[in-house]
Amino acid sequence: MNTLGKNIRLTSYGESHGEVIGAVLDGMPSNFEIDLEFIQMQLNRRRPGQSAITTTRNESDELIVNSGIFDGKTTGAPIHLQIPNTNHNPKDYSHLKDVLRPSHADYTYQAKYGIRDYKGGGRSSARITAGWVAGGALVQDFLSKQGIQIAAYVKQVGSVALDKDAQWYSMEQIDGNAVRCPDDIVANKMIEEIAKAKKENDSLGGVIECVIKGVKVGVGNPVFEKLNAQLAHAMFSINAVKGFEIGGGFEMSKKRGSEVNDSFGMDNEKVITHSNNSGGIQGGISNGMDIVFRVAFKPTATIGTAQQTIDTAGKDVILEVEGRHDPCVVPRAVPIVETLSALVLGDLIV
Amino acid sequence: MNTLGKNIRLTSYGESHGEVIGAVLDGMPSNFEIDLEFIQMQLNRRRPGQSAITTTRNESDELIVNSGIFDGKTTGAPIHLQIPNTNHNPKDYSHLKDVLRPSHADYTYQAKYGIRDYKGGGRSSARITAGWVAGGALVQDFLSKQGIQIAAYVKQVGSVALDKDAQWYSMEQIDGNAVRCPDDIVANKMIEEIAKAKKENDSLGGVIECVIKGVKVGVGNPVFEKLNAQLAHAMFSINAVKGFEIGGGFEMSKKRGSEVNDSFGMDNEKVITHSNNSGGIQGGISNGMDIVFRVAFKPTATIGTAQQTIDTAGKDVILEVEGRHDPCVVPRAVPIVETLSALVLGDLIV
Amino acid sequence: MNTLGKNIRLTSYGESHGEVIGAVLDGMPSNFEIDLEFIQMQLNRRRPGQSAITTTRNESDELIVNSGIFDGKTTGAPIHLQIPNTNHNPKDYSHLKDVLRPSHADYTYQAKYGIRDYKGGGRSSARITAGWVAGGALVQDFLSKQGIQIAAYVKQVGSVALDKDAQWYSMEQIDGNAVRCPDDIVANKMIEEIAKAKKENDSLGGVIECVIKGVKVGVGNPVFEKLNAQLAHAMFSINAVKGFEIGGGFEMSKKRGSEVNDSFGMDNEKVITHSNNSGGIQGGISNGMDIVFRVAFKPTATIGTAQQTIDTAGKDVILEVEGRHDPCVVPRAVPIVETLSALVLGDLIV
Amino acid sequence: MNTLGKNIRLTSYGESHGEVIGAVLDGMPSNFEIDLEFIQMQLNRRRPGQSAITTTRNESDELIVNSGIFDGKTTGAPIHLQIPNTNHNPKDYSHLKDVLRPSHADYTYQAKYGIRDYKGGGRSSARITAGWVAGGALVQDFLSKQGIQIAAYVKQVGSVALDKDAQWYSMEQIDGNAVRCPDDIVANKMIEEIAKAKKENDSLGGVIECVIKGVKVGVGNPVFEKLNAQLAHAMFSINAVKGFEIGGGFEMSKKRGSEVNDSFGMDNEKVITHSNNSGGIQGGISNGMDIVFRVAFKPTATIGTAQQTIDTAGKDVILEVEGRHDPCVVPRAVPIVETLSALVLGDLIV
Repeated sequence: MNTLGKNIRLTSYGESHGEVIGAVLDGMPSNFEIDLEFIQMQLNRRRPGQSAITTTRNESDELIVNSGIFDGKTTGAPIHLQIPNTNHNPKDYSHLKDVLRPSHADYTYQAKYGIRDYKGGGRSSARITAGWVAGGALVQDFLSKQGIQIAAYVKQVGSVALDKDAQWYSMEQIDGNAVRCPDDIVANKMIEEIAKAKKENDSLGGVIECVIKGVKVGVGNPVFEKLNAQLAHAMFSINAVKGFEIGGGFEMSKKRGSEVNDSFGMDNEKVITHSNNSGGIQGGISNGMDIVFRVAFKPTATIGTAQQTIDTAGKDVILEVEGRHDPCVVPRAVPIVETLSALVLGDLIV
Repeated sequence: MNTLGKNIRLTSYGESHGEVIGAVLDGMPSNFEIDLEFIQMQLNRRRPGQSAITTTRNESDELIVNSGIFDGKTTGAPIHLQIPNTNHNPKDYSHLKDVLRPSHADYTYQAKYGIRDYKGGGRSSARITAGWVAGGALVQDFLSKQGIQIAAYVKQVGSVALDKDAQWYSMEQIDGNAVRCPDDIVANKMIEEIAKAKKENDSLGGVIECVIKGVKVGVGNPVFEKLNAQLAHAMFSINAVKGFEIGGGFEMSKKRGSEVNDSFGMDNEKVITHSNNSGGIQGGISNGMDIVFRVAFKPTATIGTAQQTIDTAGKDVILEVEGRHDPCVVPRAVPIVETLSALVLGDLIV
Repeated sequence: MNTLGKNIRLTSYGESHGEVIGAVLDGMPSNFEIDLEFIQMQLNRRRPGQSAITTTRNESDELIVNSGIFDGKTTGAPIHLQIPNTNHNPKDYSHLKDVLRPSHADYTYQAKYGIRDYKGGGRSSARITAGWVAGGALVQDFLSKQGIQIAAYVKQVGSVALDKDAQWYSMEQIDGNAVRCPDDIVANKMIEEIAKAKKENDSLGGVIECVIKGVKVGVGNPVFEKLNAQLAHAMFSINAVKGFEIGGGFEMSKKRGSEVNDSFGMDNEKVITHSNNSGGIQGGISNGMDIVFRVAFKPTATIGTAQQTIDTAGKDVILEVEGRHDPCVVPRAVPIVETLSALVLGDLIV
Repeated sequence: MNTLGKNIRLTSYGESHGEVIGAVLDGMPSNFEIDLEFIQMQLNRRRPGQSAITTTRNESDELIVNSGIFDGKTTGAPIHLQIPNTNHNPKDYSHLKDVLRPSHADYTYQAKYGIRDYKGGGRSSARITAGWVAGGALVQDFLSKQGIQIAAYVKQVGSVALDKDAQWYSMEQIDGNAVRCPDDIVANKMIEEIAKAKKENDSLGGVIECVIKGVKVGVGNPVFEKLNAQLAHAMFSINAVKGFEIGGGFEMSKKRGSEVNDSFGMDNEKVITHSNNSGGIQGGISNGMDIVFRVAFKPTATIGTAQQTIDTAGKDVILEVEGRHDPCVVPRAVPIVETLSALVLGDLIV
């Protein structure tokens, strides 16, 4: 239920307003020198309160690693990563105790479990992805030292889209603006769109594109452990994700074979394809080209305007939420997409 | 690698031109009376040669079930489902032995395994989904008797799309035409589009929409066994799938929260949402509304026109394929989508 | 339920008197040339009717392999192994339909599933291990070509025991007599003991010892995937097994640390232990010494004398079984122990 | 690697002298009121320093539970259990840095991982079972409220054995003496045996017997998820375990079928067996009788007398250990056996 992976396994625990968020990362190769700064940086990219366009809830998200490491290196033992919730129980949530918030998991959790930690969404909060990012960043760093570079960026916010072919960007290019879109002109439009939605107490969705370079041919397994299937599985684990496509994706379904087939050729000694509509994966196995996929996020469910809904007793209520919600989570989801990708690839490579 | 599921588990084996295609279905509840006719019907919907718009390769796909059943009922023991390849080794494939066909899995299999059954794609052929359909149809029938109805249909072929909200259709409505689109006018346009592509030795992709009704609230598990994640995983196991979206999907990422939030209400004693942009799943758990998702298929990689590519030695070759390829596999993929959905749901329900 | 292993996975199906017994072996490395003769030989060592001391039920157990192999070599695809039951439905089992045979699985299967294939024990019969032996023998042969030699032999039959330290014997030495005890004097006593029990319509249990040489240091994983735990798990999957011990085993629990500690030393460049009470495994990981374990089998539950028991309605009945039961299954279980060991080791090594 | 179970899953982390020992327990049913006192009591039964016959190392083992609980009840979310090592880094272990201690996991860990936390055995220490006991005790309490009572006790210490048939004893009876043998006369002999070994700087092994009552018929799954196989797997995860037997066990392998077959009968409305050589499990499935098994522990590897061994460079060294080792861990292993049994049963029952 709360474990991802077979060979490298991340087990997640924690709640939005509990004492801690954590993860156990099992299966990491030994003798890898962990880079706490890189992990903390990915946590910082995910954490709320980083810029004017995100929520003002402020969590420092300081990482503790207290097992599986000896003299700064992995030992092969499970690695425990823990992030104390410095901000826990900051306010009274009792008014939300019985409300079924639209497009949240309140109703399904309540119905399935008969009990629910209603504080900030409890276990269903995106806050718990902090633990995923911590574990995934460790693996991302490990892959990076093997030449596998994972870079996600914001492709679309609301109606504003980056109209460029997928390509790999450095983190400097991606983080050059608050919205993590590697094109300043488009980024500014996105920021305006977010500011407008925020002002109007509304929220926006968007699309993240992820490009992974350096994956050699042969990663992934037919037929029920395909690399694309495992990436899709991981991405749909992220809150608010409603779509996933690889390479040519949905657009490709409108085309003809003669237009989108990726013919093979040689680039010096390396087999390449002249186009990459396959998104770097054929038959569920990497083909050595860049892996390219996109993840669609719905608009944040929490909005500042009043909404009609019901409570757990089935009575009509008006939900009014004050405060610190995030008008568009997509920029903060960039490190989540990257680190989950790392978990999937790491799982298949070690 | 070749097993899907945790509680109900399908293990697949077989190759396109081997002697048999098969599957072992483990974990089925006992005392369920199996309906071989229903299973055979789903196999027939998948098999080639059913209509003028599919490949003329003809396989009868006659099912053998030879374990796990006693007096017509499941015993709780693993069920072995086998489909002999009546048509195996029908022609000489040696000219394809060394060719890396564009947008097929030839290169990735060759590179990963160093050996490859090149006859009709071997293990990477969509033919092996016959075994999945057999096992999944058994589970689909089981779910149906519990009030869970799964119906997939063709939403789009090439540039022709059905412009209607998702809804549940009966199999009679869906199979009313060769293309399995439950609108005869749109279906005819699709059929024309396929005929045109076929005539021009080309191929088409498309989109399948699947609607599942009767799933009660509470199916699926946070956070790494979400129902949507498992559906995505299963669908990306199907050959040629390049995209998956649920409920509002990619389109929803362009909207605002106030436009797409699903507010709760009561319908008599039942909690409902007034819209269904969530696609019946919230927080990874079914909410009792129809489950709605779409699967995008790329155009068939095999086309009748000559293509430039290379062989396993890296030399340029021109690939020319004669014969029985399918200009658009989407109509035949309808039962695959349905039966894989059944496997996912069955796995979470038993 | 019916799958063993994580990386090399055997999925079993079939019933004692169904049409087929089979297995799907998934995860085998590609390009391994399979040796059907070796597999058939292990099947022959397991099959009934090989000698005067076993059951006279005669099954030829001829193996069919019809997927996962191309030009005689593994392709990385799942391998389907099937053994037709030439002897199925040979007689009327209806008198056993409602009887709960003592120390069989009739009652537990009936209570758990509410339905039961009562013919020859159905799924609970040891006959289904034929599929395990087929898959396991393939892996055993693979390991053998990597220098890992697995040899099991009969250590004890009833009250007759081989009083020698565990050591590796060749198959020629082990199969030098019908009882598979590599000491002809002891073997003859065992054969007499079995003949006596058979004559008296009774049955015997015994102990198999297994010695594996050539396993390098480092195989197995702490803390819940220990090599010893996985061997124990596999052995307890065999019908009639009631005990498992490794190295010094139960006897060692009576000793002092100073008597049984295995001190380390060097043998040329290799680290060795001067004694091997650890049985080749320390902390769940192989230490490079011979792996040594023993498996205890209870006497065959089916005996020729009348037994008091009840039927499914709870009424007293006298059970009288005629015919072809095996007075001591231990010699025939030797290849089962070997091949399951191979599955466990292969799973951890590939 | 560090996760046990499928439905109820315990993931373990931590090292002997790290900051923490912990576990994540996933899959617990919701709305169960946890009893921290019961869990703490099992931790206390396991912890060192409880009596004169154990090690004098003193750990308070105070449990922290900081996720998965809301208002004192389980929410269905993963439960994080953590035990700070109050005693960590208490002394200099550098003299053991390069020594391969006899019958410990030093060599196998060093060879497998190329790095090793040598402080108190690091990950290979039995201290990590504190996390297992915490998670397992929670499940044991849950099962107890469903009428399933698990009781383990010491059957044998060195050459002193309790010569009584297996039966269920209350914790009061078991904990009536320091050695946890429910017979004061035998217990006193055991205590003397331990005192003698301690005085002579030596160590002892022993046998624990476990009796579980209240398990209904039908728990466990053929053929690779048998209840006995899973119990064996769990028990062999415990440090120092070298043998496992169920019901009649090894002794039964010397008997005849007519002597040990368990004939069925009725006790009022309940199906029973007149003897219980099956140990409550037939065909891998519980039959409603008491589940009875025994676990053999080797003598503690750490002893106070000088031992010849080598270091990681292969050079001969004399190992002399001072201090706080435990002459016989068997009494402290009683709660480990109980709580692991609970994890196995819970996994199969929920």
